[in-house]
Amino acid sequence: MKKVIFYCLLTLLILGNQAHAVEGMWQPQQLPELEEQLKKSGLQLNPNTLTKLTSHPMAAVISLGGCTASFVSPAGLVLTNHHCAYGSIQYNSKPSKNLLEKGFLARKLGEELPASPGSRIYVTVAVNNVTSDINQSVGKNQTGFERYQAISNQKKELVRQCELDKGHRCHVHSFYQGLEYYLIKQLEIRDVRLVYAPAESIGKFGGDIDNWKWPRHTGDFTFYRAYVDKNGRPADYSPDNVPYRPQHYLKISRAGLKPNDYVMVLGYPGRTNRYRLVTEVKHTFNWSYPTRRKMYITWIETINQTISNNQDAKIKYAGRLSSLNNAAKNFQGMLDGFARSNLIERKRKVELNLQKWIQSNDKLSDRYQTTFTNLKALIARQQANQKQNLRLSYLSKSDLFNVARRLYRLSQEKQKPDPKREPGYQQRDLTRFQQSLRRLERNFDREVDKAVWLKFIEEYTKLPSNQRILAFDKFFGLGSKFDRQQVKTKLDTMYQKTSLTKSAARLKWMDADPKAFTTSDDPFIKLAVAMFDAYMAVEKESKEIEGSLQQLRPLYMEALIAYYRQQGKPIYADANSTLRVTFGRIRGYSPADGSFYQPFTTLRGITEKHTGTKPFNSPKKQLELIKEKKYGRYYNSDLDSVAVNFLSDLDITGGNSGSPTLNSKGELVGLAFDGTYETIISNWEFSKNTSAIHVDITYMLWVMKYLDNASNLLEEMTIEGK
Amino acid sequence: MKKVIFYCLLTLLILGNQAHAVEGMWQPQQLPELEEQLKKSGLQLNPNTLTKLTSHPMAAVISLGGCTASFVSPAGLVLTNHHCAYGSIQYNSKPSKNLLEKGFLARKLGEELPASPGSRIYVTVAVNNVTSDINQSVGKNQTGFERYQAISNQKKELVRQCELDKGHRCHVHSFYQGLEYYLIKQLEIRDVRLVYAPAESIGKFGGDIDNWKWPRHTGDFTFYRAYVDKNGRPADYSPDNVPYRPQHYLKISRAGLKPNDYVMVLGYPGRTNRYRLVTEVKHTFNWSYPTRRKMYITWIETINQTISNNQDAKIKYAGRLSSLNNAAKNFQGMLDGFARSNLIERKRKVELNLQKWIQSNDKLSDRYQTTFTNLKALIARQQANQKQNLRLSYLSKSDLFNVARRLYRLSQEKQKPDPKREPGYQQRDLTRFQQSLRRLERNFDREVDKAVWLKFIEEYTKLPSNQRILAFDKFFGLGSKFDRQQVKTKLDTMYQKTSLTKSAARLKWMDADPKAFTTSDDPFIKLAVAMFDAYMAVEKESKEIEGSLQQLRPLYMEALIAYYRQQGKPIYADANSTLRVTFGRIRGYSPADGSFYQPFTTLRGITEKHTGTKPFNSPKKQLELIKEKKYGRYYNSDLDSVAVNFLSDLDITGGNSGSPTLNSKGELVGLAFDGTYETIISNWEFSKNTSAIHVDITYMLWVMKYLDNASNLLEEMTIEGK
Repeated sequence: MKKVIFYCLLTLLILGNQAHAVEGMWQPQQLPELEEQLKKSGLQLNPNTLTKLTSHPMAAVISLGGCTASFVSPAGLVLTNHHCAYGSIQYNSKPSKNLLEKGFLARKLGEELPASPGSRIYVTVAVNNVTSDINQSVGKNQTGFERYQAISNQKKELVRQCELDKGHRCHVHSFYQGLEYYLIKQLEIRDVRLVYAPAESIGKFGGDIDNWKWPRHTGDFTFYRAYVDKNGRPADYSPDNVPYRPQHYLKISRAGLKPNDYVMVLGYPGRTNRYRLVTEVKHTFNWSYPTRRKMYITWIETINQTISNNQDAKIKYAGRLSSLNNAAKNFQGMLDGFARSNLIERKRKVELNLQKWIQSNDKLSDRYQTTFTNLKALIARQQANQKQNLRLSYLSKSDLFNVARRLYRLSQEKQKPDPKREPGYQQRDLTRFQQSLRRLERNFDREVDKAVWLKFIEEYTKLPSNQRILAFDKFFGLGSKFDRQQVKTKLDTMYQKTSLTKSAARLKWMDADPKAFTTSDDPFIKLAVAMFDAYMAVEKESKEIEGSLQQLRPLYMEALIAYYRQQGKPIYADANSTLRVTFGRIRGYSPADGSFYQPFTTLRGITEKHTGTKPFNSPKKQLELIKEKKYGRYYNSDLDSVAVNFLSDLDITGGNSGSPTLNSKGELVGLAFDGTYETIISNWEFSKNTSAIHVDITYMLWVMKYLDNASNLLEEMTIEGK
Repeated sequence: MKKVIFYCLLTLLILGNQAHAVEGMWQPQQLPELEEQLKKSGLQLNPNTLTKLTSHPMAAVISLGGCTASFVSPAGLVLTNHHCAYGSIQYNSKPSKNLLEKGFLARKLGEELPASPGSRIYVTVAVNNVTSDINQSVGKNQTGFERYQAISNQKKELVRQCELDKGHRCHVHSFYQGLEYYLIKQLEIRDVRLVYAPAESIGKFGGDIDNWKWPRHTGDFTFYRAYVDKNGRPADYSPDNVPYRPQHYLKISRAGLKPNDYVMVLGYPGRTNRYRLVTEVKHTFNWSYPTRRKMYITWIETINQTISNNQDAKIKYAGRLSSLNNAAKNFQGMLDGFARSNLIERKRKVELNLQKWIQSNDKLSDRYQTTFTNLKALIARQQANQKQNLRLSYLSKSDLFNVARRLYRLSQEKQKPDPKREPGYQQRDLTRFQQSLRRLERNFDREVDKAVWLKFIEEYTKLPSNQRILAFDKFFGLGSKFDRQQVKTKLDTMYQKTSLTKSAARLKWMDADPKAFTTSDDPFIKLAVAMFDAYMAVEKESKEIEGSLQQLRPLYMEALIAYYRQQGKPIYADANSTLRVTFGRIRGYSPADGSFYQPFTTLRGITEKHTGTKPFNSPKKQLELIKEKKYGRYYNSDLDSVAVNFLSDLDITGGNSGSPTLNSKGELVGLAFDGTYETIISNWEFSKNTSAIHVDITYMLWVMKYLDNASNLLEEMTIEGK
């Protein structure tokens, strides 16, 4: 009751103070422009301090490649989401020692475990605008393919120069659909270790059922540590390596949060599509998402059927199932959100008004008049191409076949000098390449792979005959009708005969020349060779289209930005896996007429949700602690409990997972880990109900202290307040 | 936003003023005892006015038998729930004139349609305590069966005397499990007509999906009218009949409601089980509910499969499907609620403390010592009997077979003098009997009936062999294994050969003597005759147990009441379909940590939920009215819309459907029509989240005025406020 009164009082405060959510994933250098808004929202730091990559707090915010994390101690301790470290926990698990289930805590450095192969920590150290470099590389009257290659070569050259500084990884990112390009330089730490993960019943509490949902009670956090060699330089894993000492790390505030508090998230959001055309929105929601959703569900079902009695395969595919389930739910959420929105209507209005605005002015008209028509025609071609290539999605559902294809491609690329090779096959990529081949030891099962492929070969045979690939049909002896028994027999033989199921064999092929492939007896290699031309033809057409889009999209964005600017709308680039800042407040919202999502959940909700059955199987000890009201210093008197998760109006997306949530003073108060169901559609359009879900730092500390006794880590971090 | 502020302010008010919900379904004569609590809750009337059955407002509250309703005009206009009148709307529907879908409005008396056969309006006119009459009829040392018969005969005699007053229906109800008996006399109005029903897309908006759910947006209301003969006396339907003029009718307040407002519901709650023993709770939740739920789901699925391509059958089974779905969801809700509660634990504590209390005092000990042991033994016997009789539930799933059984039983009963006949087969019951035979014209389909029976005969054959009934097995030639084809062939022949599918034939059998049955060729009649002895044996055992319980349960309740009284707990009888009052406040609640159900829904939610697909297919005109913000005088400024449904903490259950919700002055402000999911378990235990759902009178009036132009009815009623 006390709780309800509290929420209501604070809801009133919020509503009194706040107009609505602050849309935008801002590049750090944009923040000074937003000073007034930041201050009004409650930021107590000078916005300029947030622009410097080498200062606190930016220097502490790091990328895991696909997730975000942060340094939280002077000795390279890293905090991220449990679901971001899931692969590493899985990698170290066996049926006899299931870390996913039991959790893991290293009580001293020596006990820390290597993260899964290929795990990396990236610290952004420089961001440089290279738009003119890229644009100068492009000639006049080039074909799309030529333009694509020119830009690609220029990017490779910029990356090559940048990476002369050893231990760094560089990448050229396109902003505003190619209107701007930035070269981003990151320190690449290659020895990452697992330090502490709570049990899955905490870290993944609610599992796929609660994914994208509120009320939420997930303790989605895990600790890594960054290691470097004795000279402080990035190095491959070695027992001699020492903890990395970051320039800066985040201090933690356990003072507790309240509704309406200022919060900001610093992180690496992956991808949004807020500036797409009506035709692209339609294609995506009418064809692309439904098709992929269906494909993913078939995939999930096939894996589930195959692993049901195989404990080893269950561990191996846990991570992939988690991702697939997440993606399927994401697609459904997008489709639901889309069905309830009038996105098309609003987009159409913007396009019409933009066109009117262009036509109203001769200068604008001269520059942009044909952009629309040409862009739309090109997008139509791209969409037809995507539909046509559904077949490749089906045929590439075998991990083993993909390995064979990539190995053969590598042998081909190696015939060229390094700078001319396709990205992904250059010298700089080969360590990762090798690690990806190794990773199959832990996330591949012959029977699952075979069952999935069989299922998707069946799906492939249902496609119209003009989408069939002759080389594939010939190899499998496929007729117009699918003969399950015949294909299954063929696959049985292939999986029996191939040596690619062994790591050593896969690695050995990395050094083979094309001839070794064309003369090989390995059935997977033979198939890869037979299908090489078909895949290359598809790639060429895609590059041709992409190269043409690289010319038209920037023009469109230029016009749109000018139009938006004149309307006073916020302008920020779509998410592209680069460092961004989003700021706003903690707040609940009404997901539907007659109901309200409160901004905090508490320990009470864990007891409420506990059923004893996964994913609602709270540890017994946790339930006892809650029953005993053992809150310690993490007690929030307004909630009469410990805060578990909270909601904010921040603008995040995939890639932001694990991002530190900071308060107005730049102290760590939580981790972003999800969005609500109403938020999924926000990749296409930010709305007033767009809501990020965070795990509260006080819950993490409570779990560490009372449940897992992680006193070594609590001591290592700098924790302030109360 | 305004709305949220409003809710919050009012939530604070509520929480400030109110301790918690007022449990209790009070008999009107109990209210003066509760005067202090009623006043504190906000009642502005003198509680004594609520005790008089012949005064306002009690005299306006009527029973439909299974639902509640109220008079709302001097000309016998009756307001109840759409789902209570569903059978009558369905009865008047045809594929070509689907009143369920389109709704119905009579613009003048002559257009009003007869309600479905057997529809009745009961006005309670007298309630008399007849406990001593009943108790005096029982002799010492009787067997359970003898006691059952003695009580039954005494009840029949009391009813007979009471019904000498023509046009009345009387019934003896047991209170506190037989500790008290009341003879209740009701005026029985037999000519009931359908006046106005909104379209199903209003009246059943959300359908079975939203059933038991909040947020809710159902316009669950319909109007009937009571007709009597020219002398004002109850009569069968006749074009010469005239509207009944009730002694009192309810005035309507359209002033609008606020959270925390006092509300009360007057109605006929059907059944609760708040004083049951631990062993009964266990049996119910571990066996009875899961078993029945499974049975209902099978039943629903079978009906759905059979009607899928048959528009006529769809209409015929709409009402039954609705009831079955409701029941299945109800069972599931009970089971969910039970799983989350510690009902058993609390019940066990009460029983232990009660026993301790009894043992602490010699007088108590002498009187109640053996009650517990004996009662538990008897209940164990009853439970075994119930499990054994699951077979009869399966075999009686054919409407046609039930008709045959009842007709043959009637012929047997008719051999006795009327007062000796089994209730249900006495002269006073024959009109209803006849109507129930007629009703099959509108809710029976040969193919559906056959498919359902076939399915349940299959279920029957899965039972242990000692539960099989020889007569049935012999008739169908059933072996230990189910031979679908063989049974289907037999059923095909039976349904082809029987004449019971025709109303005239069914009615004719009402006059036949037993010999006509034993010599009949009709396969259904033959089966009924063959199984008569088996059914009678079961009935006798049930009566034997029931008669013994009639001795022990009152003793147990006497002890429990004494114990509760000494503890200062509220004491009220379990619901038993007699007139009760429940009072409390309008209020929202938190169904789960992190979320809050607001007390009102608005027109906005209808637009939100509308998908265009049943049951979320709002009329186009309604959506336009909402878009245009056409609220008229029904506008609620706090909600910035029109209130649609609201939540209260009142204590209601099935049977309360259609009950008028009155404000502190006794004015009609809504109709109770459902409870939230968390409330389903409240039949066994009232909790702080127990919540009734009401349709707001302002929404009804808004629909009548703007959507359906029911100006004739708006003028007929007395509407006050604004």
